[in-house]
Amino acid sequence: MSNVIEALVAALGSKVRTGAEIPIRNHADASGLPPVSPKALILPDTTEDVSTVLRICHDHEQPIVIQGGLTGLAGGARPEAGEIALSLERMTGVEEIDAASATLTALAGTPLVVVQQAAEEAGLLCGVDLGARGSCTIGGNVATNAGGNQVLRYGMTRRNTLGLEAVLADGTVVRSLNKMLKNNAGYDWTQLLIGSEGTLGVITRVVLGLYPKPLGVQTALCAVGNFEDALILLRQIQQVHPGRLLVFEAMWREFMIVATEICGLPPAFEADHDVTLLIEADMGEEPAGSEAFSSLLSTYYEQGLIRDAVVAQSQADRNRFWAYRETPYEYGRFLPEEIRFDVSVPLNRMTEAVEHLRRNMRVHWPDAVYVVFGHVADSNIHINVAIDKMDEDLKKAVQKLVYDLVSGLGGSISAEHGIGRIKRPYLSLTRTAPELELMRAMKQTLDPKGILNPGRVL
Amino acid sequence: MSNVIEALVAALGSKVRTGAEIPIRNHADASGLPPVSPKALILPDTTEDVSTVLRICHDHEQPIVIQGGLTGLAGGARPEAGEIALSLERMTGVEEIDAASATLTALAGTPLVVVQQAAEEAGLLCGVDLGARGSCTIGGNVATNAGGNQVLRYGMTRRNTLGLEAVLADGTVVRSLNKMLKNNAGYDWTQLLIGSEGTLGVITRVVLGLYPKPLGVQTALCAVGNFEDALILLRQIQQVHPGRLLVFEAMWREFMIVATEICGLPPAFEADHDVTLLIEADMGEEPAGSEAFSSLLSTYYEQGLIRDAVVAQSQADRNRFWAYRETPYEYGRFLPEEIRFDVSVPLNRMTEAVEHLRRNMRVHWPDAVYVVFGHVADSNIHINVAIDKMDEDLKKAVQKLVYDLVSGLGGSISAEHGIGRIKRPYLSLTRTAPELELMRAMKQTLDPKGILNPGRVL
Ligand SMILES: Cc1cc2nc3c(=O)[nH]c(=O)nc-3n(C[C@H](O)[C@H](O)[C@H](O)COP(=O)(O)OP(=O)(O)OC[C@H]3O[C@@H](n4cnc5c(N)ncnc54)[C@H](O)[C@@H]3O)c2cc1C
Ligand SMILES: Cc1cc2nc3c(=O)[nH]c(=O)nc-3n(C[C@H](O)[C@H](O)[C@H](O)COP(=O)(O)OP(=O)(O)OC[C@H]3O[C@@H](n4cnc5c(N)ncnc54)[C@H](O)[C@@H]3O)c2cc1C
Repeated sequence: MSNVIEALVAALGSKVRTGAEIPIRNHADASGLPPVSPKALILPDTTEDVSTVLRICHDHEQPIVIQGGLTGLAGGARPEAGEIALSLERMTGVEEIDAASATLTALAGTPLVVVQQAAEEAGLLCGVDLGARGSCTIGGNVATNAGGNQVLRYGMTRRNTLGLEAVLADGTVVRSLNKMLKNNAGYDWTQLLIGSEGTLGVITRVVLGLYPKPLGVQTALCAVGNFEDALILLRQIQQVHPGRLLVFEAMWREFMIVATEICGLPPAFEADHDVTLLIEADMGEEPAGSEAFSSLLSTYYEQGLIRDAVVAQSQADRNRFWAYRETPYEYGRFLPEEIRFDVSVPLNRMTEAVEHLRRNMRVHWPDAVYVVFGHVADSNIHINVAIDKMDEDLKKAVQKLVYDLVSGLGGSISAEHGIGRIKRPYLSLTRTAPELELMRAMKQTLDPKGILNPGRVL
Repeated sequence: MSNVIEALVAALGSKVRTGAEIPIRNHADASGLPPVSPKALILPDTTEDVSTVLRICHDHEQPIVIQGGLTGLAGGARPEAGEIALSLERMTGVEEIDAASATLTALAGTPLVVVQQAAEEAGLLCGVDLGARGSCTIGGNVATNAGGNQVLRYGMTRRNTLGLEAVLADGTVVRSLNKMLKNNAGYDWTQLLIGSEGTLGVITRVVLGLYPKPLGVQTALCAVGNFEDALILLRQIQQVHPGRLLVFEAMWREFMIVATEICGLPPAFEADHDVTLLIEADMGEEPAGSEAFSSLLSTYYEQGLIRDAVVAQSQADRNRFWAYRETPYEYGRFLPEEIRFDVSVPLNRMTEAVEHLRRNMRVHWPDAVYVVFGHVADSNIHINVAIDKMDEDLKKAVQKLVYDLVSGLGGSISAEHGIGRIKRPYLSLTRTAPELELMRAMKQTLDPKGILNPGRVL
């Protein structure tokens, strides 16, 4: 046993696991990077445990990988050989719901779904929601500044986070379990940790702001002639019904063709349309809610802004509409290997981006299957590209095409999934040299020995 | 002339002013701290000018005070003897409005009102608004993370800021003129500068997200029996009409007594009430908007949640209602010297805070005139205390009472106005030692020679 592991065992006993005691699940995250067994796995129960671990690892200059729910797509939580994994999986529990302040305090390892249920039971809503809700942790959501489908209404995790407790690289515990929307007393250091992907500190507790629950959610699929009309529609609904839109997802023509012709869903509309939108809005109690929603869509249909639309009359309809949006989860069954991009593009350059992609795919990889879809209200699109017999060179060529395109238009190579290990080589496409230097200075200040998630982000 | 001024004049010529060439306005801000003439005043025209100034001052270890619109209430922009003032007053102009992305890019010295008008002309709304709009600058708003009356709807300046350009202490220009709601590519360094009150860098350009314009604003004064009922009302309106509330200001009993008996406004209601609320909401186009608003308030009146209410039927009514909320601007004419507090308190402790204050004022200063009012939806209250023949000891005693009260309840000594020079001695009441150490580490990293706004915040 190495020195550092001896020291950890002496301090934490059976909370330290090694060799075959380490479950396979802690060897990898959801990024697809191959599994690697960490040198040890530590399962702290308390913030004090985390502080002890970091103090010891800091003294021994021992690199650590921090693990939440392991649903991350950027490879940040996958161990590298020689790293010790620190998993927050035992630090779970909602500690307080303050209904008057509309806040919730939870330990960082609490699964998002547990946080959501606790809010729900108190008659409130947690604004953070994503597909991985069953497994991802609230600490991981803060560490990655996670987005999701309802960012349009409730913002990224950053906006939902009011307070944090965290342990710094040397074991220092910093705590600001602030419950207030406003606090301008000195620098807001919590902003530094949000979205730092475990490279600047370990998040141990989170205070979230909560929202009143929607009274009645309406769902529709709408076809529009082009992306510009989608944007006009978005701004109009936001103006006429401020605060009601929850979801505004766009699926471009190629996406709907794959959904119907390859994944086998029935066509959504009789005709083909350039952009299909999945829209959800909290329109208030029934029956007024569905009446208001239908009459809103009728108006836009009469104006020619919407070419066609169907409104869900039941939960079954709603599921049927969402099934289109969720076809990418099924691509593995139908398509060759894919590369998935999570990029953002300023909205005024979006059509240009899609046209440029279409032109280049046609020229370089005419047989590729590619789709464009996503949270357009947040300028965030996903691009999935599937090509037969994808090898490393081909992958690199496609990545180069997409990342050059995005950075040329002032976009970002990572809208929500983060940089982690996978996108690290491309960070300089989207950030200037002085920005990278500033990031490095922040890392150097908070983690001078570079023991926290080394090789991730920077 | 000192060395550093020679070097500045050599590089920037007439952009450097000294002695009697320095206007009196640059000697002070709105904090009430006595005016001090800076060693020189520099009026850069461009980001490159700012970079040159900082490079030279950095080389000479020359302290600088950064000046925006000089409306700050914390004394951050008031020069100290020996400092050089760097004023952004010439760096004005809205450079771009991108209607598709709903963003605006402006030079940091642009007055907020100019930013608001440019947004308005493009059919959009700037979410940042405060009483000082005519004089304060958008750079100053970002530097102080300014709040205002509509934080409830649009958030603090932080939430409205999508991108920044800034000059660091050594003259390095960092730029992320991001227009997208989502960008998780590396650390978001802009968050560090927002709210740093000029101690970590000079903000030179700002990208703001804009909103659709309200279609019709309704205004009411409502009386409620206690603060708990005010909170229930707030959550109910937010649930039934999400996104419509713009203003939700509370004025406690003492405030309304001062407004009527001392400032001479007519009583708002026949009876006295513990809390009076000023409510504004964007209820959409007329006549549906005012009908919906009145029927909403009637429902709460029938439920007994609202004890009394008046709805504005005209702009004159609206002004009449706002006149109550704005009486504090008039206190100078009617009351002895005041101390003004801008604190936040978790909403579930608010009643406790007010009761504690009442009890203590009665015991210690029975003749004091004090009022409690503010942006309660954001947990932010203002407390003004006026006492005859206020001397330094008395002032300190009152400050101690209020700050102890706030920090004992988990609140903050500065909700929106910042720490600056005035609240620096009290920062440790509201922040722990590890937090202060982390703040100092950030300062040390970004401004190792301590030339930017020294003695402010930390
Ligand atoms: C089906 C599916 C759907 C998804 N949908 C979305 C989506 O819509 N939007 C989106 O943004 N992401 C999405 N993701 C990605 C992922 O769920 C998020 O990044 C999530 O926030 C990760 O949380 P986690 O607890 O699983 O973190 P992990 O995967 O365990 O870790 C992610 C990163 O954060 C660090 N970390 C984790 N916990 C902590 C902590 N307590 N303190 C410090 N650092 C920590 C890790 O070291 C790692 O770098 C999806 C993933 C899947 C599998
Ligand atoms: C009548 C009135 C009403 C007010 N209402 C509110 C309110 O509702 N909410 C609220 O939050 N505040 C309010 N304030 C306070 C003040 O208006 C805000 O703090 C405002 O944001 C300051 O902007 P400014 O341009 O005047 O900054 P200044 O007063 O010039 O400077 C404020 C601080 O920011 C720094 N600074 C200024 N510009 C820059 C820059 N470009 N780069 C880096 N640092 C910079 C200065 O060094 C100083 O520390 C009010 C003030 C008045 C007089």
